[in-house]
Amino acid sequence: MRVAMEAAQLDALVLRLPENVLLLSGFWPMIGAAFLVFPLSGESVCIIPDCYRNEALSALRSTEPIFFPYGLTDSPPPNDAVRKIASSLTNASSWRKIGYEADFEAIAPSWNSAESLVPAGATVSLLRSAFSSAEITDVSGLLKKQRRTKTDFEISRLEIASEISAIGLEAFQNAVDVGKTGVELAAEVEHQVMVRGTGYRGAVRVRAYAQVTVGTEETAVAYRPNIISTKRQMQPGEIALLELGLVADGFWADRTRVRIAGKPSEAQRDFFAGVVHAQEAAIAKIRPGVAASEVDQAARSAIRSAGYGSFFPHITGHGLGFGYHESSPILGPQSQDVLEVGMLTSVEPGIYDRSFGGMRIEDDVLVTSTGARVLGPYQKSLV
Amino acid sequence: MRVAMEAAQLDALVLRLPENVLLLSGFWPMIGAAFLVFPLSGESVCIIPDCYRNEALSALRSTEPIFFPYGLTDSPPPNDAVRKIASSLTNASSWRKIGYEADFEAIAPSWNSAESLVPAGATVSLLRSAFSSAEITDVSGLLKKQRRTKTDFEISRLEIASEISAIGLEAFQNAVDVGKTGVELAAEVEHQVMVRGTGYRGAVRVRAYAQVTVGTEETAVAYRPNIISTKRQMQPGEIALLELGLVADGFWADRTRVRIAGKPSEAQRDFFAGVVHAQEAAIAKIRPGVAASEVDQAARSAIRSAGYGSFFPHITGHGLGFGYHESSPILGPQSQDVLEVGMLTSVEPGIYDRSFGGMRIEDDVLVTSTGARVLGPYQKSLV
Repeated sequence: MRVAMEAAQLDALVLRLPENVLLLSGFWPMIGAAFLVFPLSGESVCIIPDCYRNEALSALRSTEPIFFPYGLTDSPPPNDAVRKIASSLTNASSWRKIGYEADFEAIAPSWNSAESLVPAGATVSLLRSAFSSAEITDVSGLLKKQRRTKTDFEISRLEIASEISAIGLEAFQNAVDVGKTGVELAAEVEHQVMVRGTGYRGAVRVRAYAQVTVGTEETAVAYRPNIISTKRQMQPGEIALLELGLVADGFWADRTRVRIAGKPSEAQRDFFAGVVHAQEAAIAKIRPGVAASEVDQAARSAIRSAGYGSFFPHITGHGLGFGYHESSPILGPQSQDVLEVGMLTSVEPGIYDRSFGGMRIEDDVLVTSTGARVLGPYQKSLV
Repeated sequence: MRVAMEAAQLDALVLRLPENVLLLSGFWPMIGAAFLVFPLSGESVCIIPDCYRNEALSALRSTEPIFFPYGLTDSPPPNDAVRKIASSLTNASSWRKIGYEADFEAIAPSWNSAESLVPAGATVSLLRSAFSSAEITDVSGLLKKQRRTKTDFEISRLEIASEISAIGLEAFQNAVDVGKTGVELAAEVEHQVMVRGTGYRGAVRVRAYAQVTVGTEETAVAYRPNIISTKRQMQPGEIALLELGLVADGFWADRTRVRIAGKPSEAQRDFFAGVVHAQEAAIAKIRPGVAASEVDQAARSAIRSAGYGSFFPHITGHGLGFGYHESSPILGPQSQDVLEVGMLTSVEPGIYDRSFGGMRIEDDVLVTSTGARVLGPYQKSLV
């Protein structure tokens, strides 16, 4: 990151999105009220609400914490407190160019996902007044590029998130049954992930976001980016499709499985085999130096060969890790991305048909020096 | 809103935060990919991803929908599609001043709370290019002011959210027991809210966010704005405190209850009576024209009289409705707000002590022409 900063003539970064504070300090703030000051030279400083002292001290790496009073009747306005600390940092007055997160439009929620604090007008004012002699500029592109490939530390944390997501997949497969609704299945998966995932290999803050579609009509459009689980009850032989986003201490997993209530038909088995084969074909293509569009093409060809050519309307996968979705790599027909060691991507081909319903399988795959490794592997089966 | 726009010489607003699209159109977008164009004169237009057609058509009020292809391999980049539609709207070329959400720093998540789309750099570029002859300016203050008092329609929806939150309070009181962990209690509340709340009085998209602290050490600091539920098991006679945020179709509730596992001590009963009495004193003060600081003072005096004067470190309440927290009114010692008919505020006094633990009670209270009305009333009891 500092090499990139030097090339861009940046003296410091000041970041507040929890996902980026995590990236550069190891600490995932409870909500976006902490600011990370990351200078080109010298130690980083994280300015943190004092009530989160314990969480910060146990996580920060190579970063000095400075605490400020927060959230009580006698606390000064947080931006005033942060401004005062930031403007008095060593060397701050000599900084000429400071980067911040001006163009993050898709943001990951903080731990309290019922509310997010994001950098908008007041943050810009704070930066302008704390660093009045510096130019304040956008570094979103730089941060997104830094996030494309994961370090060993990050991979070890992403593995934990993926393994916890497998708990959710298991809960789903155990719960699918005739009479169950999408709402019940989603609630059950989220419940089990929180109860069994918290504490798993040291994970402290774990939350799942499940979307479950049920039956032909709902699963046929389950390629929509956001799906409402409903109270429609599963009938014998119907499909249930789980889309699962999950965060464990700031690191994300993104999985999908399908199950049948009762006995699958021959056609359903064929359909499912088509999806599984497409995913295997895509994963087999993954290795450093390969064009992301080729991986997409492998899945698309497999689906076409199986006779479902026109029923795969979305991309094969996307980057993830510090959020549910990241902008790179994109495994899609028009993608210009080339795979690199340390990239993490979803691989999620699907087949959808109005009269038949939809199926998708999704796993998160790490690009390694020798090929691909699925994180948190979990069985794929219809029943 | 149009009166305020005229005073500010605004020709139109262009909004994308789901909470504000809901405010001015009745439609709560699935994620922040829909744009509402709200002109000073003439009909509003909502530019919406085509996959959310059904949700939009069933909710939009006095707003024309225009759909664009979204999220599939053959969809153009969404900002290009929105720009093209926005720039060709009737009269758009004559607009000289357009408002957008430049200063929302605390944002409510959309339905898919695992990811939020917010207006940042790319949105500004989109607006500048779609409306090249207009000044693009911040209207966050205007929107926040509009949100301070709720319409009858909004109140009817907020009642549904509050009644569903009572389901969560009931689930909590039924689940508290010796041996239970905060994680288990939080997961149980969220589970029951989703299963029993979805469909309640027509609610379609329901999600709870529960934080449960357990025992003396955890509840003593439960005034922190964000609390981690842990795997600590409840011992006989210990306190559990539930902080519950909840959204139903874009409308929020915010509740708190405490329970004892087993038999409460005399001291716990006194402590609890102090909290309940403080809440009653605050609610009794609420009516139009009263200073918000007086309501806070009523709760604070009651706690002081009960002998717990120094143990109430936070404000008595805050506005809410289109989000978990809204900036007005604030029921606090330094607040300048004056209560008006249609305001909705939490009332949540608490008492916290290191050696004893913490207790808080929270309900959402509407300011009516004759006084105050608690939405979704639910019993307050320790056991």
